[in-house]
Amino acid sequence: MRNYLAEFFGTFWLVFGGCGSALFAAGIPGLGIGYAGVALAFGLTVVTMAYGVGHISGGHFNPAVSIGLAAAGRFPGNQVLPYIISQLVGAVLAAAVLYVIVTHNVTPFVIDNTKPGAFAANGYGDLSPHGYSLVAAFIAEFVLTCFFLLVICGASDKFASKELTGLAIGLCLTLIHLISIPITNTSVNPARSTSQALFAGGGFLPQLWLFWVAPIAGALVGGLLYKHLLQLSDKGQAN
Amino acid sequence: MRNYLAEFFGTFWLVFGGCGSALFAAGIPGLGIGYAGVALAFGLTVVTMAYGVGHISGGHFNPAVSIGLAAAGRFPGNQVLPYIISQLVGAVLAAAVLYVIVTHNVTPFVIDNTKPGAFAANGYGDLSPHGYSLVAAFIAEFVLTCFFLLVICGASDKFASKELTGLAIGLCLTLIHLISIPITNTSVNPARSTSQALFAGGGFLPQLWLFWVAPIAGALVGGLLYKHLLQLSDKGQAN
Amino acid sequence: MRNYLAEFFGTFWLVFGGCGSALFAAGIPGLGIGYAGVALAFGLTVVTMAYGVGHISGGHFNPAVSIGLAAAGRFPGNQVLPYIISQLVGAVLAAAVLYVIVTHNVTPFVIDNTKPGAFAANGYGDLSPHGYSLVAAFIAEFVLTCFFLLVICGASDKFASKELTGLAIGLCLTLIHLISIPITNTSVNPARSTSQALFAGGGFLPQLWLFWVAPIAGALVGGLLYKHLLQLSDKGQAN
Amino acid sequence: MRNYLAEFFGTFWLVFGGCGSALFAAGIPGLGIGYAGVALAFGLTVVTMAYGVGHISGGHFNPAVSIGLAAAGRFPGNQVLPYIISQLVGAVLAAAVLYVIVTHNVTPFVIDNTKPGAFAANGYGDLSPHGYSLVAAFIAEFVLTCFFLLVICGASDKFASKELTGLAIGLCLTLIHLISIPITNTSVNPARSTSQALFAGGGFLPQLWLFWVAPIAGALVGGLLYKHLLQLSDKGQAN
Repeated sequence: MRNYLAEFFGTFWLVFGGCGSALFAAGIPGLGIGYAGVALAFGLTVVTMAYGVGHISGGHFNPAVSIGLAAAGRFPGNQVLPYIISQLVGAVLAAAVLYVIVTHNVTPFVIDNTKPGAFAANGYGDLSPHGYSLVAAFIAEFVLTCFFLLVICGASDKFASKELTGLAIGLCLTLIHLISIPITNTSVNPARSTSQALFAGGGFLPQLWLFWVAPIAGALVGGLLYKHLLQLSDKGQAN
Repeated sequence: MRNYLAEFFGTFWLVFGGCGSALFAAGIPGLGIGYAGVALAFGLTVVTMAYGVGHISGGHFNPAVSIGLAAAGRFPGNQVLPYIISQLVGAVLAAAVLYVIVTHNVTPFVIDNTKPGAFAANGYGDLSPHGYSLVAAFIAEFVLTCFFLLVICGASDKFASKELTGLAIGLCLTLIHLISIPITNTSVNPARSTSQALFAGGGFLPQLWLFWVAPIAGALVGGLLYKHLLQLSDKGQAN
Repeated sequence: MRNYLAEFFGTFWLVFGGCGSALFAAGIPGLGIGYAGVALAFGLTVVTMAYGVGHISGGHFNPAVSIGLAAAGRFPGNQVLPYIISQLVGAVLAAAVLYVIVTHNVTPFVIDNTKPGAFAANGYGDLSPHGYSLVAAFIAEFVLTCFFLLVICGASDKFASKELTGLAIGLCLTLIHLISIPITNTSVNPARSTSQALFAGGGFLPQLWLFWVAPIAGALVGGLLYKHLLQLSDKGQAN
Repeated sequence: MRNYLAEFFGTFWLVFGGCGSALFAAGIPGLGIGYAGVALAFGLTVVTMAYGVGHISGGHFNPAVSIGLAAAGRFPGNQVLPYIISQLVGAVLAAAVLYVIVTHNVTPFVIDNTKPGAFAANGYGDLSPHGYSLVAAFIAEFVLTCFFLLVICGASDKFASKELTGLAIGLCLTLIHLISIPITNTSVNPARSTSQALFAGGGFLPQLWLFWVAPIAGALVGGLLYKHLLQLSDKGQAN
């Protein structure tokens, strides 16, 4: 049970910290943290929980990561579903707490779900933060999650450095956000997307499929690429 | 005695660096470090002192952390009070040095304690940087300190990586600030809040209670959650 | 073959992440990541792939690095050409994917190759982001790549710390970008420059020579300086 | 000799990267790296060279650090002078290369040495970036260098973590800049200050004394405080 609780707490923290920093702090004129600060926040949720509970659950906090690691032969397939459920519950609960905080403000909080990025939700086309189409959004989410899995599989490989694994993986999520917040508000994580779409509502719900399909497809390809093209032989030989 | 001195120096540095960067450098038009720079500064005070004196005192620098670690069974209860006193003395002395520096400026420095964030103080309602109510402030401080303790207990667990512990904990404080400076100016640390309220005065003193109660309550819950729900068995098993 | 694939994926990621963040996210008013965010992105591509595939290929992702390491006696000379080819293929393919994404936007994307920084290309003189001449550009690229190799050779030295090698090298690329984006848009990597010049076209192609010659010359000097002036004796003695 | 060369290269890099990022990239409207980017650049020069040549010379790159470590009994006193000379030569040569680059720009470069921060020089009073007096400047430089030495002595202590030492010390320099660029343009390093004052000239030369006296006094106090108040007994006991 402790591994499911670790995934629950970790994914709560990812949504509370990543989406929370976007909601509270990104756009304040002159002082706000901007897209770079949000990118740092998302990455640090993973860095902190990777060192906090990574030794308990492996530190996925993301359905696409659990699926990709299973494809790479690094995670037992029968654990994928309970991990995803734990992640979804944590993500949705974090979104609920965020909702309570943002609504307790002197400025009435109104979710305008016809505009991009409402309640930190992911979107494409009309709901892309800066006008990227479905095709651009799908390619970006697919490529970024694919390389996220390459980095995760590599950095946790038995032949790689050990101490820095969690830092490299967390900073990879920061990098992914530095690239792609303007495209889709950055998902690469179906639990994160679902938690925000539920509260944002409107046009975000019919777009949610892309933020399950593209990240999971990318994660599967990344996991398989690592296993079949990059994984060293048992003796650590590259050739 | 060396452990109390380490807590004194560490908490001095946390207030001098974190609150100092806010006072001196946050709001300069066009070049200032903004909320993201202040968040980085607070985190780096903990990173630097965790590696600097963490081996001497454990590196708490925060009454809520000492109390939470005691609740988690990681810190002897009879050391909590002397640690808190050391932390308070360091924090208040740092605030005094900051006051001397800011008053030695060609621009007369006036603490307008009817406005949010005066002398880097924490507040809610009228004194929240961006209009968050008492309820929002309490929830944010409670949740953030709770997860701060989860990360601290986890990252310093015997089953976790060792070398990165101080970095993960310090960057967790950066993350916490990225999320919540707009809400309460971010406390999660009663010593930091007290040091600023004493110099800010005015309406900040009657609000100081929240920045003792909410962080300590969150830290207690975080320490107990880790101990009872996440701590692995002695053999390192999750189930 | 796995080492060539690792260089392919790593250099793809460097161009996709570094140049991609510049194209998508740097200049958005009020929220964009700016030059500092792009500098962080470039560095994190190397940090993530150094821990991801560094154990497979050594993690060069840059023709100048492969050449400099060969000069320092750290990399077999007969591997330089296949490494460079793998890097070039990865870089150009990443640029192609970036091109597909940026063209799928509601705002028609037009590469104005008479202006500095078009499609994240490197330039000097008229095509320098902030008006630096050929001489300034050459000196900057030479000095920065020279010190990049000093850091790479030193951080991967048998007498240096091991776990942090990839982080130090990646953050060195961040530092290099913090200094020099305004000068040349920062190359220090002929594969990165080539990939962007091919898509930017126009005046960037005739300037491409500098971003092969200066980085490679700097890397050769850096590798030789480390080998002959800094490398400790086999017993680790400095004198 | 290799240790002197390591200090030469390291201090060249500190001035070239730290002051260079300030000169080239800090103030560009909308895209510039600002004070936070300069703070990051200074810190990363130390991070990269600590892992690059720290195993050769110990990685001081700063006369105040060499003197403070000697006071703490960590560095032989008869090496202080040759280290300082190596540092000064590296710093001044880096400033000369910066001067060549900035003068090769289409915008004529004019050092207006009646204004704060000319050629990245340090100053107080009229030459403080934001109007801080001599008293404020002295206190800030003294306190910051004192704590810099506490962190350096602690992080390199035999009882502390080993792998992260260079990162903690470099990030401490980032933190110091986040706090104090507005006060003095941040020295804590007489070699860095001297290199810039020589090229800035004017009123900066008569103020140079403070950026030798305050950092060295702070470093001496920091080194002695660590040795006498914090250094654990040989058995690692705090009491």
